[in-house]
Amino acid sequence: MSNPSHPIQLDAQGRLQHFLSTEGLHRQHLTTLLDIAESLSEVAERRVKKLPTLIGKTIVNLFFEPSTRTRTTFELAAKRLSADVLNLSISTSSTSKGETLLDTLRNIEAMQVDMFIVRHEISGSAEFIARHVAPGIAVLNAGDGRHAHPTQAMLDLFTIRRHKPDFTALKIAIVGDILHSRVARSQIHALNILGADEVRVIAPRTLLPNDIDRLGVTVHQRLDSGLRDVDVVIVLRLQKERMRGALLPSEAEYYRCYGLTEARLKVAKPDALVMHPGPINRGVEIDSSVADGLRSVILEQVTNGIAVRMAIMSLILGGARHTQPSSEALV
Amino acid sequence: MSNPSHPIQLDAQGRLQHFLSTEGLHRQHLTTLLDIAESLSEVAERRVKKLPTLIGKTIVNLFFEPSTRTRTTFELAAKRLSADVLNLSISTSSTSKGETLLDTLRNIEAMQVDMFIVRHEISGSAEFIARHVAPGIAVLNAGDGRHAHPTQAMLDLFTIRRHKPDFTALKIAIVGDILHSRVARSQIHALNILGADEVRVIAPRTLLPNDIDRLGVTVHQRLDSGLRDVDVVIVLRLQKERMRGALLPSEAEYYRCYGLTEARLKVAKPDALVMHPGPINRGVEIDSSVADGLRSVILEQVTNGIAVRMAIMSLILGGARHTQPSSEALV
Amino acid sequence: MSNPSHPIQLDAQGRLQHFLSTEGLHRQHLTTLLDIAESLSEVAERRVKKLPTLIGKTIVNLFFEPSTRTRTTFELAAKRLSADVLNLSISTSSTSKGETLLDTLRNIEAMQVDMFIVRHEISGSAEFIARHVAPGIAVLNAGDGRHAHPTQAMLDLFTIRRHKPDFTALKIAIVGDILHSRVARSQIHALNILGADEVRVIAPRTLLPNDIDRLGVTVHQRLDSGLRDVDVVIVLRLQKERMRGALLPSEAEYYRCYGLTEARLKVAKPDALVMHPGPINRGVEIDSSVADGLRSVILEQVTNGIAVRMAIMSLILGGARHTQPSSEALV
Repeated sequence: MSNPSHPIQLDAQGRLQHFLSTEGLHRQHLTTLLDIAESLSEVAERRVKKLPTLIGKTIVNLFFEPSTRTRTTFELAAKRLSADVLNLSISTSSTSKGETLLDTLRNIEAMQVDMFIVRHEISGSAEFIARHVAPGIAVLNAGDGRHAHPTQAMLDLFTIRRHKPDFTALKIAIVGDILHSRVARSQIHALNILGADEVRVIAPRTLLPNDIDRLGVTVHQRLDSGLRDVDVVIVLRLQKERMRGALLPSEAEYYRCYGLTEARLKVAKPDALVMHPGPINRGVEIDSSVADGLRSVILEQVTNGIAVRMAIMSLILGGARHTQPSSEALV
Repeated sequence: MSNPSHPIQLDAQGRLQHFLSTEGLHRQHLTTLLDIAESLSEVAERRVKKLPTLIGKTIVNLFFEPSTRTRTTFELAAKRLSADVLNLSISTSSTSKGETLLDTLRNIEAMQVDMFIVRHEISGSAEFIARHVAPGIAVLNAGDGRHAHPTQAMLDLFTIRRHKPDFTALKIAIVGDILHSRVARSQIHALNILGADEVRVIAPRTLLPNDIDRLGVTVHQRLDSGLRDVDVVIVLRLQKERMRGALLPSEAEYYRCYGLTEARLKVAKPDALVMHPGPINRGVEIDSSVADGLRSVILEQVTNGIAVRMAIMSLILGGARHTQPSSEALV
Repeated sequence: MSNPSHPIQLDAQGRLQHFLSTEGLHRQHLTTLLDIAESLSEVAERRVKKLPTLIGKTIVNLFFEPSTRTRTTFELAAKRLSADVLNLSISTSSTSKGETLLDTLRNIEAMQVDMFIVRHEISGSAEFIARHVAPGIAVLNAGDGRHAHPTQAMLDLFTIRRHKPDFTALKIAIVGDILHSRVARSQIHALNILGADEVRVIAPRTLLPNDIDRLGVTVHQRLDSGLRDVDVVIVLRLQKERMRGALLPSEAEYYRCYGLTEARLKVAKPDALVMHPGPINRGVEIDSSVADGLRSVILEQVTNGIAVRMAIMSLILGGARHTQPSSEALV
């Protein structure tokens, strides 16, 4: 299995040993992960929401960029698999001062930890760390710059599949700041790998990346054409600082052109799903009535995020099998 | 069982499903809680201070107001019941910025957590959260504004009962800043529910609430009359910021009028208990010789706080029975 | 067993009940600790890196001086022994404001915890706390001022012993800021107790303590004489603030005189170990080629730190025996 984009995330047998990006993975990798997540999502329904899968394993949240929300989902996923969790918030300024990033990394790995969950503001940092960790230590990318946020993409796909199982029949629109969105990049790669019928991006020109033509999407600048007949709408969070960066005129103007309202949603399929990686800006990129409406699966995404993160941890650390995952294999 | 004050904390069968306030509860609720705490307090004496009661449950410390001390007691109680604990410190400024409180709440509850421990500077916020959480999630109030701090009140009652089991024979004085004290309010309600012979408050007029006449207490402005023949003296912490608020002349003046000394304690019963919710201001509201004296049970209160918090968690989440709690039911 | 220096760390039977300093201990204390660490270091090689030894015990990291790195090693050690861990970061300014250190301590110990791991900027504070905790609670010194850092010294000895088992045949040089180093003091005492052939310190006069003659070391001011024929070189971290304190001319000048390079290391034994307590300042006290070189055991020290800290926790709390530790006794 060749993977020119991120070969390091696969071992010699083509199995995931890190999870850095959805780009370059094979359909089997993604469906296996979704299948394991499906079996693990039942755990949260039990009276005892905990499995012994990763007892004795140490998982380190290595967050160079603060994110209580994302860290919490990884921490919960790890604890529900009985792993020990260390939370390390490292400001990039302090590491640059006294100790290099690699020295910090080698020190923590010398404590015989099993997995790093990495979030960093610089694109490529998760792969950099994966290239330098000791053998046997896995790296999960929890968001690196504009590059990738693969567990977010997988929980989105998991949520879609629970409602609409056949990706080859789906048209999916991603609305908003594609340029700065690691979430969108990871979603686009994953949807294309699973053979989605069409992936559209809807954004003003200023919020589209230069390489958009190579991503396998159709580009729309207007919501009304972009949303026509779609099965899924994924709304991206608008980072408020983009306003100051002269990329956008104002919040009100953005809402007028790209804010998702019930009226605009009318052109989509009647049963279209509305998704958002959170946290939402009500009245900026999405209207409250849509966010809280019947077609919104935004909170399901949060719930599914735990199962998907448990799945990737189990798959890499716990020996959960790539094919035919059974609950016995996990317990 | 009617509960006009906080009906939401009881389910249709009149059982506690949240713990927001002692106000409006029935005697049976309180005695059951104290009985369970009694059986759990033995756990701390064992070699293995841990029960499997809440294994697989997730308890979230949701602190909008910083309090290492209180958070620690809830964290320890949860861990001694084998629950997983998430600590989330949320500044009210940041939630108001990007995301509403309810969005934050819905996101965390979507992670299939079982209980929120809430501390917030606004009175009524714990009940607000209880009204909006998903069914099946319990809310414990760890202090909301001036309103209530029911687990503190229950650990105080537990401490009193261990020394003086018959509340109907007891005169209890609460000394200090009643106006701003959620602890005092919760104590007064609980003591009256358990039929205390007399609950007195001792405070300057500026530190008494307007509704003091409706709380079922007798009011004293002077220590010497207020402490006469009491069985229990509860000294409240003086918040230093009250000095700047023009409610009080000075620390020295407060100590002269309301500071509890051995000399002043002479008018109380010879075996009167001295209590304080902590942390104490030595030489402000209490003299060191009293705080560290033979009648002080201040550190017992801290110890009992763990058992009482374990009890309320067990009662609500672990199915510990309201009547006849047996150690088997808990283990 | 007399221990005039820190008698409190031994109980009436001469067993360790606290671990405050290596000074004044007997050879048997140290070798027992090293033997237990040896058996525990195998745990980290297992698939399940966890023992039930301290289940139900509560260990409190009481850090008055911030140190993510050191706290993490104690937290991991405690979790691998199945203890519950509380992390309390206490700024010395806040404790002095509202509550005395002893009140803080008594409150936490009233929560029936079993062990305090103490780090504090004031020399002697760990012993002060050990003198005032309730009976049955153990105190481990994780670094107090310039005084002692005994677990660091023991992990250094453990690392040395794994490579060169006979201390009586070893010449060991400690290079750098002896004056301010609690690590160096603890190492010197421990090495002398184990009968090291020679302990040398290599430092400029300004970085030597006044009592250096009483520590049982030979003093060198120059690297070339100090390193001649040594079996082990321990390089100390140079605190950058010493430059401003007029104790040292400049980083470049320090490196020129005391920075460990491959060239300077030539006078040491060919198989000399290079050690450093971390974090290293590359190009200040040590050259990168030496830090990352074949003779460096710096990362082994980090790994061994977990086993050594597990050993002292097991020894004091878990009833691991002083003599003939067997793996059964620990599990």
